[in-house]
Amino acid sequence: MFSIEFKIRDYECDQQGIVNNAVYLNYLQHARHEYGLSTGLDWLELGKRGIDLVIRRAELDYFRPLKPGMMVKVTANPVRKGKFRLYFEQEILILPDEDVAVKALMTAACVTDGRPAAPPELDKWFGPPN
Amino acid sequence: MFSIEFKIRDYECDQQGIVNNAVYLNYLQHARHEYGLSTGLDWLELGKRGIDLVIRRAELDYFRPLKPGMMVKVTANPVRKGKFRLYFEQEILILPDEDVAVKALMTAACVTDGRPAAPPELDKWFGPPN
Amino acid sequence: MFSIEFKIRDYECDQQGIVNNAVYLNYLQHARHEYGLSTGLDWLELGKRGIDLVIRRAELDYFRPLKPGMMVKVTANPVRKGKFRLYFEQEILILPDEDVAVKALMTAACVTDGRPAAPPELDKWFGPPN
Amino acid sequence: MFSIEFKIRDYECDQQGIVNNAVYLNYLQHARHEYGLSTGLDWLELGKRGIDLVIRRAELDYFRPLKPGMMVKVTANPVRKGKFRLYFEQEILILPDEDVAVKALMTAACVTDGRPAAPPELDKWFGPPN
Repeated sequence: MFSIEFKIRDYECDQQGIVNNAVYLNYLQHARHEYGLSTGLDWLELGKRGIDLVIRRAELDYFRPLKPGMMVKVTANPVRKGKFRLYFEQEILILPDEDVAVKALMTAACVTDGRPAAPPELDKWFGPPN
Repeated sequence: MFSIEFKIRDYECDQQGIVNNAVYLNYLQHARHEYGLSTGLDWLELGKRGIDLVIRRAELDYFRPLKPGMMVKVTANPVRKGKFRLYFEQEILILPDEDVAVKALMTAACVTDGRPAAPPELDKWFGPPN
Repeated sequence: MFSIEFKIRDYECDQQGIVNNAVYLNYLQHARHEYGLSTGLDWLELGKRGIDLVIRRAELDYFRPLKPGMMVKVTANPVRKGKFRLYFEQEILILPDEDVAVKALMTAACVTDGRPAAPPELDKWFGPPN
Repeated sequence: MFSIEFKIRDYECDQQGIVNNAVYLNYLQHARHEYGLSTGLDWLELGKRGIDLVIRRAELDYFRPLKPGMMVKVTANPVRKGKFRLYFEQEILILPDEDVAVKALMTAACVTDGRPAAPPELDKWFGPPN
């Protein structure tokens, strides 16, 4: 399972002293992009060629708050159903015990000229259609 | 239906030239807080008295991208089921045609000392338990 | 003097309950862009033609903190010295009394292919060279 | 010289494909706080005791843009002049060559009940008054 680890930064916390809900989406995106780079596929390069990976739906369950100074691990597990249905199962875990802070299911789509597409590059990220 | 209107700001957009997915959660939060203030109940004041409103689950469907200069309307419709189950049905609409950019269902909980609570103040935001 | 007005949003505040220093730069940028649009010149359009307006230096003096719910006025006064030296004198004022929260001097440069440029469009923003 | 190192994240970049000017202030703050923690002094703890470290003035010179995927090093050099005048000299350097992206001088003040203060804890961060 692909994952990245980093430390929560003070400036990401809000008035309640915890990381703001919206920032979690940043963390999840960062993990997805790093996953992409690890497969040799840069989504920014894809975008320049007119192939866009976009998020269609986000589902997040918040279990524990994140606080300044915590070390976290963010996972990104790509899942493909058929040719066009793409997902990322993701978690944000608090280290060292891997307590679950957030579970997320991100539904993505690959789009060219506004239409669903499944270029061969997608196989690098999500595996071949099944 | 409570709503606020504002203009998309350039700095909220990412490398794809559209508002980043995470920023939408900021917009939704802003609308919820403004709704709260409109009922005479400030969540920050509640927080100082040990009563926290927290988000437990977020579901967002992204339909259309938001771009710099667009005017948007963000709605916040509070829904209460029983004593403890609290929701906000929300939409981000692109003006002037009110095209739907995002539909969201936010599940909230009211917590005191880490336990579910239903102080009378909640009625101002969500109506009485039904 | 060009200015815009808006309300501070809760999510822009940090653990000290005040708007984070970095967010002030967002506000200032937003005011500069709105100023540009008011002159009929969109910096994003310029960028697509290879003409970039970039910030070279920022000087900010912080006088008063900004808090949730405050209404602010952000000014943007363009100043040109000679052909290439471009500045924005800016202030963030707390309404209704216009108490000064921040004074800023932003030094900009217009760049084409990495070199200083002074295309005629600049006159719309900064006036003719003097 | 105290420093931290990290990788630029995609979501910190704006429509020009480079890290937004405002985000640099976040990076600088993060380095200052990590410096504080390295001396055993947590500014958040100080704040709870009514002792606030606030930024009075920021001067930033931008030399090179930061782009997605770059590794950077952010320094924080505390300087004290007399009892009350506190500064951080900071740089953002692009690795591995340590090309200077930003040089910054941050002027800070220690405040208790709104008045300048110089509690003994300050010596841990800035050294004794000279």
